[in-house]
Amino acid sequence: MAKINNNFNKLPGSYLFSEIARRVAAYSQEHPDRALIRLGIGDVTRPLPAAVTAAMHKAVDEMATAQGFHGYGPEQGYDFLRNAIAQHDYKARGVEIQPDEIFVSDGAKSDCGNIGDIFHRDNVVAVCDPVYPVYVDTNAMAGRAGEYDATVGRWTKLVYMPCVAENGFSPEIPQTPVDLIYLCFPNNPTGAVATREQLKAWVDHANRTGAVILYDSAYEAFITDPAIPHSIFEIDGARTCAIEFRSFSKTAGFTGTRCAYTVIPKELERDGTPLNSLWNRRQCTKFNGVPYVVQRGAEAVYSPEGRAQVKETIQYYLNNAKVIRDGLAAAGLTVSGGENSPYIWARTPDGMGSWDFFDKLLREANVVTTPGAGFGPSGEGYIRLTAFGEADATRQAVERIKVVL
Amino acid sequence: MAKINNNFNKLPGSYLFSEIARRVAAYSQEHPDRALIRLGIGDVTRPLPAAVTAAMHKAVDEMATAQGFHGYGPEQGYDFLRNAIAQHDYKARGVEIQPDEIFVSDGAKSDCGNIGDIFHRDNVVAVCDPVYPVYVDTNAMAGRAGEYDATVGRWTKLVYMPCVAENGFSPEIPQTPVDLIYLCFPNNPTGAVATREQLKAWVDHANRTGAVILYDSAYEAFITDPAIPHSIFEIDGARTCAIEFRSFSKTAGFTGTRCAYTVIPKELERDGTPLNSLWNRRQCTKFNGVPYVVQRGAEAVYSPEGRAQVKETIQYYLNNAKVIRDGLAAAGLTVSGGENSPYIWARTPDGMGSWDFFDKLLREANVVTTPGAGFGPSGEGYIRLTAFGEADATRQAVERIKVVL
Repeated sequence: MAKINNNFNKLPGSYLFSEIARRVAAYSQEHPDRALIRLGIGDVTRPLPAAVTAAMHKAVDEMATAQGFHGYGPEQGYDFLRNAIAQHDYKARGVEIQPDEIFVSDGAKSDCGNIGDIFHRDNVVAVCDPVYPVYVDTNAMAGRAGEYDATVGRWTKLVYMPCVAENGFSPEIPQTPVDLIYLCFPNNPTGAVATREQLKAWVDHANRTGAVILYDSAYEAFITDPAIPHSIFEIDGARTCAIEFRSFSKTAGFTGTRCAYTVIPKELERDGTPLNSLWNRRQCTKFNGVPYVVQRGAEAVYSPEGRAQVKETIQYYLNNAKVIRDGLAAAGLTVSGGENSPYIWARTPDGMGSWDFFDKLLREANVVTTPGAGFGPSGEGYIRLTAFGEADATRQAVERIKVVL
Repeated sequence: MAKINNNFNKLPGSYLFSEIARRVAAYSQEHPDRALIRLGIGDVTRPLPAAVTAAMHKAVDEMATAQGFHGYGPEQGYDFLRNAIAQHDYKARGVEIQPDEIFVSDGAKSDCGNIGDIFHRDNVVAVCDPVYPVYVDTNAMAGRAGEYDATVGRWTKLVYMPCVAENGFSPEIPQTPVDLIYLCFPNNPTGAVATREQLKAWVDHANRTGAVILYDSAYEAFITDPAIPHSIFEIDGARTCAIEFRSFSKTAGFTGTRCAYTVIPKELERDGTPLNSLWNRRQCTKFNGVPYVVQRGAEAVYSPEGRAQVKETIQYYLNNAKVIRDGLAAAGLTVSGGENSPYIWARTPDGMGSWDFFDKLLREANVVTTPGAGFGPSGEGYIRLTAFGEADATRQAVERIKVVL
């Protein structure tokens, strides 16, 4: 008799965004006349840059001929893309990353989840609270989270690092031993960033204790402050303790085109084994690479035209972020994020619960947000808004929210 | 101190195709003047069908506009593709599969590996011998295979089902209890197919014992015999015991374009839990869907033009298969497969070892094959040839092999 992985049955309810989708669908069915504005799920709305679609057209044409056809590519990604990443995302910022330390993939979500394959089940995992649910749920599925305690909204074996107003949404180093530390800067959901000094403290801690930092910098393109690091590898010592996840999703609008990458330096070893080799084996065995057409599109992100177009798109979203941030602040809400990040983290008024505030904004303002509680207990009393909407709709949403506050 | 998944260190040497690539690269470096013909790794060579590239161009154009842009799609795949699959791959053959029983993915390799996430680590796994290495290696990584015994080339906890000339390369039902049974028909590597009666015996066995059949039918498009089932779901009772993996890779040349799907009927439950729900949760948490452009390409495979073009390509490869099969048989080798399959399984001459025969063909005929021993102990004494080459090169390879035999 086949037995299931019973860790799945410990997962509470449905995935956050599914629950939001369910509530939105129910409301829309009751009120088909209301036009909703979505500032909830972090999906982009601007089209792919012209340089990217031109490169994809060219690649599709190649695939239509016997001479230009590409079958199985390297599981780790084509050299043309790995080289472009090493050059533009790292060397240009003074960081030496070799192309064979870069693994191109179909998404940072996949990589953040699948990375667990190379680690022992007994590692103690530390996560921020609030947190991107994928880090928690994938570790729960793998048996690293223990049991879910619904009374406190936490897993028994995870170590939570609260990110709250009192510490400026910057997690403190855990007092108890941890083995795997998920960090995300610019942060999803709070929009907070980490300074060089803060990251240096994490790196030193990890090197001292042997922990591995799993660093999600999917939103680095939104950093405007020149003092803020874009990569954990800008910090001395990170090559022996950190793995970095990056994505084209939010940079170049690839949420529906699927391309990302993970960086594992060759010096990073645990139990005498290079993690780069482990991940390479994992990817070669359970993954078959990213579509050739998509990799050519991603490569074009680094062309002069591509870079200019991406910059323009990022600025468009940053303008939205400012509209949301300034508008909600003017309406009396306490807001953070949105300056080096596409996410705005707003405190609910009068201590209202975050799902209640979500429902209020859905029903009264017809604006979809994300309730902070969905990201963890310390997200209670907050909502997350995203800057990925259309500019006019975003302005309109802020006006509507102001009216109902 | 972070600990690694030490199951990885139990994996012997490198992945089969990496070892082949290494030997081929070494030979090519020594003999840069020799033009090799590759009938080894199962990669296709014909271009994408014109209907597919036309659909991809159209989708890229959509992605270039704000109106036509597609961000995150459903993790399970777009309805347009799931509906087309249900209609053409199942209903057209008299099989009722609902669209929400179909999960579109980036590859059958990914799915065959990742499916282990939803099963308990203590399940006993049965695999054919010889076998596609991914089934074995992914279970070894997950801790289900025990220890690798290099003296016999087998893992201590796996149950091996020999597929040898004596049983017509058809595995026998294990005498000891097993929980998960990997079957692949048309088979990789032997090219054997399963009759309706043989599949019925597997389904009955699985329903009687509670085992789950993991059925890989990535090569079903090559079936020419109308009596041979294309899907496990053509067999009564399969809906309560089987998961099926399908791919566009070998059907429509998607090895470098990446699209596949997995079918999990809603009636399939273990431990009181529907496996469809478990896989849905797994995919929603650790996967973000297949590129919109690629899904539009896959949809076009089912258009009248797409179907005609795919049929032509399959016939092209089947002609190659006949050339290889007939040519090697005429040269005195014992061959099987290649009639309902792109794979030809040939016995080595004079009891030669399969890596030795691989090296001989590489060095003397300059033809790359796959040594049967790489697929498991019962593959010793065989080589696998694939029909995915160009027609002229395939004919030439067969002539070269004839000369050195």
